[in-house]
Amino acid sequence: MNPLNRLETLHELTDGFRKANKTIGLVPTMGALHEGHLSLVRQSLEEMDETIVTIFVNPSQFAPGEDLDQYPRTLEQDLEQLAHVGAKHVFVPDSSLIYPPGFSTSIVPPKVAAVLEGEFRPTHFSGVATVVLKLFNMSRADVAFFGQKDYQQVCVIQAMVEDLNVNTQVRVCPIIRESDGLALSSRNRYLDAEQRKTALVLHKTLQHVRDLITSGQNDGFEIVTEMRQMLIDGGVDSIDYAVVADPATLETADFIDGKVVALLAAYVGKTRLIDNLIIG
Amino acid sequence: MNPLNRLETLHELTDGFRKANKTIGLVPTMGALHEGHLSLVRQSLEEMDETIVTIFVNPSQFAPGEDLDQYPRTLEQDLEQLAHVGAKHVFVPDSSLIYPPGFSTSIVPPKVAAVLEGEFRPTHFSGVATVVLKLFNMSRADVAFFGQKDYQQVCVIQAMVEDLNVNTQVRVCPIIRESDGLALSSRNRYLDAEQRKTALVLHKTLQHVRDLITSGQNDGFEIVTEMRQMLIDGGVDSIDYAVVADPATLETADFIDGKVVALLAAYVGKTRLIDNLIIG
Repeated sequence: MNPLNRLETLHELTDGFRKANKTIGLVPTMGALHEGHLSLVRQSLEEMDETIVTIFVNPSQFAPGEDLDQYPRTLEQDLEQLAHVGAKHVFVPDSSLIYPPGFSTSIVPPKVAAVLEGEFRPTHFSGVATVVLKLFNMSRADVAFFGQKDYQQVCVIQAMVEDLNVNTQVRVCPIIRESDGLALSSRNRYLDAEQRKTALVLHKTLQHVRDLITSGQNDGFEIVTEMRQMLIDGGVDSIDYAVVADPATLETADFIDGKVVALLAAYVGKTRLIDNLIIG
Repeated sequence: MNPLNRLETLHELTDGFRKANKTIGLVPTMGALHEGHLSLVRQSLEEMDETIVTIFVNPSQFAPGEDLDQYPRTLEQDLEQLAHVGAKHVFVPDSSLIYPPGFSTSIVPPKVAAVLEGEFRPTHFSGVATVVLKLFNMSRADVAFFGQKDYQQVCVIQAMVEDLNVNTQVRVCPIIRESDGLALSSRNRYLDAEQRKTALVLHKTLQHVRDLITSGQNDGFEIVTEMRQMLIDGGVDSIDYAVVADPATLETADFIDGKVVALLAAYVGKTRLIDNLIIG
């Protein structure tokens, strides 16, 4: 499969789709594809008339010192996997096409971007929101598919879409996990065998939170204390956050009453992993 | 004419246009319509299959202490004038429809927003860019029509459209002037008879700049010195800026060589007036 890498070619394609009144699905990725990404592609292929997958490692959502340079780039395997699931249109732009000389507009992301990831990666969601809005516009997508794995990212994008009246709907698809519970992530390939075992504690902790809440625990502070203890006992190297929060605003839930989401970010070695679970 | 004031009704309308492959023109205004606005509406009616005019006095582009409260609101006359030129679709949203509870996303406008108006009204263009992007998305316009009168605004919107890959083209239409040269502005109605006469010095100053440049003056500093003197001699109460600048970047031109734009903002009484002229 030959990926598209010019804006003109992409627009010719989408113009044709529009004129034929075909619906357009978008699956924006940073490549290093795994079953999580492929599940989004399959969903779009099933729901939409046409599907555009994008592969772009977006520099503006990495802060200095983060893993932009070592982020896995596996274009050839990505294209093979995409062809295998039946994707026909893959857009792989150069950075200079996304951020040409003089580029200087950006998005101040909605309030929900300020907490959790926003505290530890303060410029991250501005970079995400800006590139996602650009990709929505470039692809003229009717629906864009995202994984629940990046829970807060989905909240940010949904709020941006609502606030700016963007004509692309956001569809959220379930987290895909290994059989032992580890959430799929392109960053899992940073883990060695020992770390890979340690990383299981993230999902186990989330399951424990669900068990606690299901059995009547409603004190947010007590749950969070147990979460942190379990992560540390399990061998993570540090914790960025471990919370139980309102599923829409991501404000910390002191008293659990109804649907919540448990979210955590922790380091195993130098690898930062995130995971989450909707409960109730 | 009954204006549209619900988003659902607007979307029904634009969905119909889209499905019929009709082109959509947008003329965003803050009401208090004059011949300048009507020239944009006529242009859209001529060029596009369908035209949507919006009337919304956008609070977020006014700073505290500016004239948001006294800004003229003349909805009934506006609708009559629009009907008279043949506009069929006028969207008049409430503020709560544009900025519902929880609204918290905004645009960091492009670099060209930082100078001139940006120095004197530092939050202005963020408010403009955000509401304009929302109106583009709400109306699903193919082309939006703006007046050259707000020269820097047009630069900001064009750069935003390019940077964010917005699927709405920006069309710029000429400044409409009274027979004595005063650029039409909704704010002209703040002027009393005496101030109305004083205000003519803005256009006269711009014409003088053109004459200077045409006759070979190429020293930006000397031209600006003459501009300021002429405005003061003409009786303006204060000057925010008076410059000769690059027509794309709006950077001050020290040496005039090729196309430039002369721009000025000055107070006549308490009324702030702006005007500009492209030269070369």
